[in-house]
Amino acid sequence: MCELLAMSANVPTDIVFSFTGLIRRGGETGPHSDGFGICFYEHGGVREFKDYLPSAESKIAQFLTSYPIKSKVVISHIRQANVGQVSLQNTHPFQRELWGKPWTYAHNGQMPINAIPAPSAFQPIGQTDSEKLFCWLLSALREQAGVNSSVEQIAGLLMAMCGKINQAGVSNVLLSDGEYLYVFCSTKLNWITRRSPFGEAHLCDDDVKVDFSSVTTENDIVTVIATAPLTNNETWNQMLPGEFRVFKEGESVWSGQTNSIEHKKSNN
Amino acid sequence: MCELLAMSANVPTDIVFSFTGLIRRGGETGPHSDGFGICFYEHGGVREFKDYLPSAESKIAQFLTSYPIKSKVVISHIRQANVGQVSLQNTHPFQRELWGKPWTYAHNGQMPINAIPAPSAFQPIGQTDSEKLFCWLLSALREQAGVNSSVEQIAGLLMAMCGKINQAGVSNVLLSDGEYLYVFCSTKLNWITRRSPFGEAHLCDDDVKVDFSSVTTENDIVTVIATAPLTNNETWNQMLPGEFRVFKEGESVWSGQTNSIEHKKSNN
Repeated sequence: MCELLAMSANVPTDIVFSFTGLIRRGGETGPHSDGFGICFYEHGGVREFKDYLPSAESKIAQFLTSYPIKSKVVISHIRQANVGQVSLQNTHPFQRELWGKPWTYAHNGQMPINAIPAPSAFQPIGQTDSEKLFCWLLSALREQAGVNSSVEQIAGLLMAMCGKINQAGVSNVLLSDGEYLYVFCSTKLNWITRRSPFGEAHLCDDDVKVDFSSVTTENDIVTVIATAPLTNNETWNQMLPGEFRVFKEGESVWSGQTNSIEHKKSNN
Repeated sequence: MCELLAMSANVPTDIVFSFTGLIRRGGETGPHSDGFGICFYEHGGVREFKDYLPSAESKIAQFLTSYPIKSKVVISHIRQANVGQVSLQNTHPFQRELWGKPWTYAHNGQMPINAIPAPSAFQPIGQTDSEKLFCWLLSALREQAGVNSSVEQIAGLLMAMCGKINQAGVSNVLLSDGEYLYVFCSTKLNWITRRSPFGEAHLCDDDVKVDFSSVTTENDIVTVIATAPLTNNETWNQMLPGEFRVFKEGESVWSGQTNSIEHKKSNN
């Protein structure tokens, strides 16, 4: 399975600690050796870093672990390719502009690419089912919603579409417009919200710990979402199959449940 | 004036030498201290690096001078802000998907933002006239051309639009779909094609020289386009005001001329 990582926070926060844990899984403690990508929202803009090299070897990934970028919304992905060659155009997160906002998206799963309806307004650049699904979701938003739609409308629409496509195959989704972070769990996603009083956390994949109380203020609220828990001394919330959740400023602000699908094999 | 830099080559080539010269102008040998960005096309995908810090100080820019990325098409920009705050969303190059290809664009110039017609299919994310112009150009391509249009059709359409908007203000343009590099000179652009036999070049802005014969093969063809010549021992071609040119695989493959406009002041 590819590994997903996202963050939603109420103050610009660096994700170096979680990212350090994640990238070890890219070819070192995990098999996800087909590239990685990470998008940081900053003041309405997006900064994106991608590499098709394993994240555990990538000089760009190494650079990022020593260069803290503070952001309120982050989406990241390390890839184990199953469809589409290992190349930059197949590397998540994917990005498109809709309603004058930069939408970013990362996905893990696999489905027959023809199970995804042809997108209207956006076209995939690469060959993955993941990017086609992204284009289909955004095309539907463009047709059926607008820049003034409420988060409930957007979330309801996305949840219905994610629930529908989940019947065709495994499809865990992270999607953001820089303000809201939309999350759909097909098989496996976990999240944790950290707030005052902050404690110490220890990474599963590395001999690294951080005392969050030394790098935060008492008003900070930071949620991290990941395929598997990244720390081994905290309690993470395990999302249910079919669960859809929206985060904003570090808080879970909306949730819903689609039919749970029993996927026979979720190793992609 | 902001500084533009682009490359078109017939083999993946690193642009570290030219980029090293350019970034010195971002707050050190030049006044362009409001951020920088660079896009590298690699196998149909794009890798983008941006910072709102002056390029001469940016750790990301420093990283890129030590990490050669090989690409056949590169677009870069260092910014001296005149419209829109200094932030990531106003930092060039801008990027949008059209016809399943990632189009990138950088611009220098300034015009009344209302002189640019409202774009239909793409919306600006930031506040710059530059990004609005990009959205207008791509929206017109989407409406009036298609994925199977010839380069002559695309170039003719873009040249007519660039010529029109040039009447409203200074507007030097770099635009690419990863295969072709479209260049419009409103006031100032220079280009050089290097091919066998390669010689030595010396940067204007830094005490750096490179012997291209040691890093190329005899079949390599590499064109570099920049606002001002980057080397002081080679002869660059100065583009005429109103000139439009298309490069592919390092060669100039199409050119045309619109009416020359005498812009009173081109310091933006």
